This record gives sequence, structure tokens and C-alpha cells, in this order.
Amino acid sequence: MAANDGSLTGQSPPAAAPDFDRAVREAIDSKTKPVGALGRLEDLAAQLARVQQTLAPRAARCKLTVFAGDHGIATAGVSAYPPEVTRQMLLNFLAGGAAANVMARALGVDFTVVDAGVMGPAVEHPRLDSRRIAPGTLNFLEQPAMPVEQCESALRAGREIGSGGDHEVACFGEMGIGNTSSASLVAAKILGLPLDGLVGLGTGLDAAGLARKQRVLETAAARTPAELDPSAALREYGGFESVMLAGAVLGAAHAGKLVLVDGFIATVSALAAARLSPEVMGNLVFAHRSAETGHSVVLEALGASPLLDLGIRLGEGAGALLAWPLVRAAAAMLRDMASFESAGVSGRT
Amino acid sequence: MAANDGSLTGQSPPAAAPDFDRAVREAIDSKTKPVGALGRLEDLAAQLARVQQTLAPRAARCKLTVFAGDHGIATAGVSAYPPEVTRQMLLNFLAGGAAANVMARALGVDFTVVDAGVMGPAVEHPRLDSRRIAPGTLNFLEQPAMPVEQCESALRAGREIGSGGDHEVACFGEMGIGNTSSASLVAAKILGLPLDGLVGLGTGLDAAGLARKQRVLETAAARTPAELDPSAALREYGGFESVMLAGAVLGAAHAGKLVLVDGFIATVSALAAARLSPEVMGNLVFAHRSAETGHSVVLEALGASPLLDLGIRLGEGAGALLAWPLVRAAAAMLRDMASFESAGVSGRT
Repeated sequence: MAANDGSLTGQSPPAAAPDFDRAVREAIDSKTKPVGALGRLEDLAAQLARVQQTLAPRAARCKLTVFAGDHGIATAGVSAYPPEVTRQMLLNFLAGGAAANVMARALGVDFTVVDAGVMGPAVEHPRLDSRRIAPGTLNFLEQPAMPVEQCESALRAGREIGSGGDHEVACFGEMGIGNTSSASLVAAKILGLPLDGLVGLGTGLDAAGLARKQRVLETAAARTPAELDPSAALREYGGFESVMLAGAVLGAAHAGKLVLVDGFIATVSALAAARLSPEVMGNLVFAHRSAETGHSVVLEALGASPLLDLGIRLGEGAGALLAWPLVRAAAAMLRDMASFESAGVSGRT
Repeated sequence: MAANDGSLTGQSPPAAAPDFDRAVREAIDSKTKPVGALGRLEDLAAQLARVQQTLAPRAARCKLTVFAGDHGIATAGVSAYPPEVTRQMLLNFLAGGAAANVMARALGVDFTVVDAGVMGPAVEHPRLDSRRIAPGTLNFLEQPAMPVEQCESALRAGREIGSGGDHEVACFGEMGIGNTSSASLVAAKILGLPLDGLVGLGTGLDAAGLARKQRVLETAAARTPAELDPSAALREYGGFESVMLAGAVLGAAHAGKLVLVDGFIATVSALAAARLSPEVMGNLVFAHRSAETGHSVVLEALGASPLLDLGIRLGEGAGALLAWPLVRAAAAMLRDMASFESAGVSGRT
């Protein structure tokens, strides 16, 4: 197997995939542990090996990028929190006090926040990556959330952000009051599924709030056909932060990074990305199952079974972050563990 | 709440528990996130706060201690691997090549290996913590696995090991060919449950191997009453590594550490520890659900719902290690996240 190592470091042609997969499986099975005993960590290691086309994959650095943007629909009373919270949270990210900040620090993950289009005047801050498309989207109850040019600009900015940096693993998070509403509609239109299974409590609506959200979104959905292509769905109902996140997934995957997909909104962005470029699926790791209702529906549509199920429903990339140590451990297993032969350990009787 | 911080740093009397729990809940709910949005991470943070009796809990250091020991029963053909693998793996741990080593390094966890009683002559190595009780237990098919004095010595050594060090979080792992057999019997006798739900494939038996293991263990079980007190169960069927692990759980919990409980064997040791000293339960975090059959039975008896479910069935503390980053993130959340007030973020409408 060692003789194969060199040739496998470069880009292998697609025809070599079964041989490469077999070599990865053999490398994992040669490690000093019963076959399969590390469960899903073994699958993760194999996926990272495939993405990097090497039997000694690296997971030395991870970066979380959080995209913030406002939604015209937020004025329609679809959230438990007022729209100004998006901007306040952007400042909180810049000050280092949000969950995403402290969790990223605790887990050794780099952090950046992007203004994709927050309401009000532009925020000036040395650590802010300002990519403002506009100060919030339009209200998609009456019109598309954004013109086609803005949607394309957001995707382009996301691709550029996603493809940059020398980290092997990328997490993308989002912040935007109203963005579970937006994501519910984008998912319903891309998947051609009924809205009701995709609308949930978001940041914590009560029963009356949920009923109002449902009514508002049904009205907004009626404006367009039951199924839309991904670009149209993003333009009609997306947010600048979630469209940019979809672009970032494309950029990161095409740059050979492993992408840890967060919760409901990030998964809907990943769904859009995968419909635009199906080959990115091989780079995606679905990190966790959110407590937000629609997430399981979208995961099932993607055939995805997330690594973690901790009842998290925050966004900000918080769930994605928690999968990073699993990737690190998986890579270390494949790179650094001894084999039965190298350690002189007896095999099965 | 800040005024309470100081007084809560010391040991509070039990009567103060409801007030303290309320203070922890309020501190978590004041953070800039929807109430409950970090799911089980919030419960973890609250547990660590209770264990440390502070609203600013620390999780700066974690240590994994792996106990290795041999089992007389291993000569009865109950494992897919030969008994000499225990010693070979001890050497592999010392050389840094086992899963536990590379995963601990990847996750920033300190590592020690303890010879609790491996077959053959004593291993000499500068990094080995040698606490050999005897070169392997007796075969529990015909007699108790160890005399009462050895059982007490192993518990005592474990308590000493568990209580040492300045790490706030402890993981304990084990290695010992034959130790799923041992743990199945210890669990069955402590819980008074039938053996068959507690016997599984271990390191990977085939159907014939499992049937043989079942028969051997039924014979061994028939030697003693259906239910035993924890000390008797450990003495009759335990291993030096698993008894020492039970002692380590007691020592670490009594020293105020949070203990991340690994898979089937470690959970049976934790069960024995919790039956010997029920108050340690508050210090235990059940890290993962092993793929080994009996683990879910024991978890249910303990009322435990583990954090992770990744199909891991390795032992060595591998699953416990993977919960460490969750504890780190949870502690950082409670210590370092901004509150709505401190960050100037608006609350619910």
C-alpha cells in the first residue's frame, strides 16, 4: 500500500476511484483495532481521504465563516425576535461574545464574520468582511427577495470566500432574523414539497406565532409555481447570507475542502449548492440534526444522516463546529495509527 | 447574579442546590441565543457548573487513562483475538500508535497507560504506570476471578489514580482480551438481569463464536446467585483493568472531576462505582452509545442517554475522548458568552 501513497497524493482520474476506495479501506482495516470498530469515524476518514486523494489526509486547520443578512419578510412578524437583532448580533460576533465565537475559540477554529447585507448603514470594523449586497432583501410576500443580479453577486462573493484560505475543513454559519422562513420556502420550492413540514419554531415562536408564520409563508409560496430551479428559489425567497453561504459551499468544495454543514438554513443552502453542482456532495459532511422541524425533511431529501444529534437549533455554524474534532480524530486515525504489522500485534485467531 | 458568583465558588451545602440550579439556568438563559438553542450543550454546562459549584466552570484540561489487564477466561475461546494481544496493545499504547493515542493527541488530551495486570513478566517502560495486581485474573468459569484482597487493591489503586492530576475532566479506557465477557457477567449480576441481552460480538465474533461465548458465560454465571452486590460481582467476574477503572471513577468523582464514561466495559465499571457510591452519578457524563449489544441495556438501567452515537465499539476510551470537545465548548459557553444585556442585543418581541 505504501507504494501507492505517492501516486495517490495527486488528482486521480475518476476511473481510479474503486481502486482508491479499496486502498483506503485496506489502510483503515490494517490499523490496530477490530475492523469497523471506529464506526462513523472510519467513514469520515475515508471521505477526507477521497476529497484529498491521499491515504494520509490532513485536518490541521478549520475555519468558521458566519454570514449575516436581513430579510424583508422579518417585518411580517414571522420571528420571535425583532429584525434589529441581526445587526446587534453582527456587532456581538465582532466583539467575540456570541456562541459561535466562544465555541470556535474552545475548539481551535478560526472565525470570520461577513456582512452579506444587514439593514442600516454599513458597519465599519477592521475584522469585518464586508460584502454587502444591499441593506436587507425585499419582502418576498409581494415580490422576489432580490433581483437576479444581486443573487448572482451573492453567489459569486460566496464562491470567492469559500475557496480562499489554507484550511482543509470549512464551517459556514448564518445569522439573519427571518431566515428560517426564507429557508423553508427555498427548500419547499427546490424539493417540490408542501410547506407545512418545513416550517418550524425558529428562534422560539409560541403556537400562535407559528400559526401566523405558516399563514404568511403559505401566501408567499402561492406567488410562484410549486417547484422552482435552485437559482429561481434562491432569488425568489433567499437571503443574502444564505445565498452567499450556498456560494461558499460551492467555492470550498471546488477548492478541495471538506465542508461541515450546520443546521436547517445551512443545509438548505447546501441543498441549493448540490442542485447547482451535484459533485460537491462528496465534500459535504452533515454535522448535526437540528431541532428545527424542517431540517430532518431536508436531510432525508439529501439522503444525509448527520453525525451529531444534540438538540441544537442555533445556527451560526454552532453544530458544524462540534463536528470538527471528529474530523480531526478521523484524519489522525488514518494518518498516524500503527498497523497490526508495524506494531507487532496479532490478528484474529 | 454576579453577586452570587463568589459565594458559589466554594462548596455549597446541599440545601442550596435548588438556588444554585436556578442561578445556573438564569445564567445560561441570559446568553445571546434563544432559550434552549444549544440543546444538550446547555445541560452539560449546567452539570459542570454543579460539579465545580461555580457559574464560570473550567474545562481547560482533560486526561485519558487506559487500564490494561488480562483475563483467565480468555483461554476459553470467548474472543476473536488471542490473549497475547493485551500485552501487544500495552506496548502499542506506550509507542503511541493505538487509536487512543492518536485521538488523544488530535483532541489535546493527556494520555497515560496503566498495567493493571497483564500476563507475562512486568513491562518496563518510563511512561508506564505499573500497578500490576497479578499477571491476569483467574478463570472465572471455575472460581472467583480474584481474591477479595486483590479486588480491594485494584479499587484502591484506581481511586488513587483517579483522584490525581489537575485536569478538570477525566476519561478512562480499558484494554483486555476477554473483557466484554467479564463485563457482561458483572452487569448481569449487579442488575439481576438475564445474560443473553448483555452478551455481544466484542471485537468481532462470528455467529458460532457468539454462541460459544454465550454457552461459556452461562456456565460461569451458574456458579453464583442471580444477583450479587457490586463488590462480589467485581471479585467474581471482574478484571484488574475494569475494577481499577471503577476505582478511578470513584476517585475522580470524589476529587470533583467530571468523568466522561466510555463504552460497554467502562459503563459497567461506572455502574459498579455508582452502586458503591451513588453520589458519583452527578459527576458522570455518558459519552457515547457503543455498538456492543449490552451497552444499551446498561445505559437504560442507569437512566443514561449518551451524547454521541457513532457506531464505535473499540474501548480504549475512544468514545469518551470524542465527548471532551463538547464539554470544552459547553464550559466556554457558560464562562465566556456575552449576555443580552452586556452585548446590547434586544430580547424577544
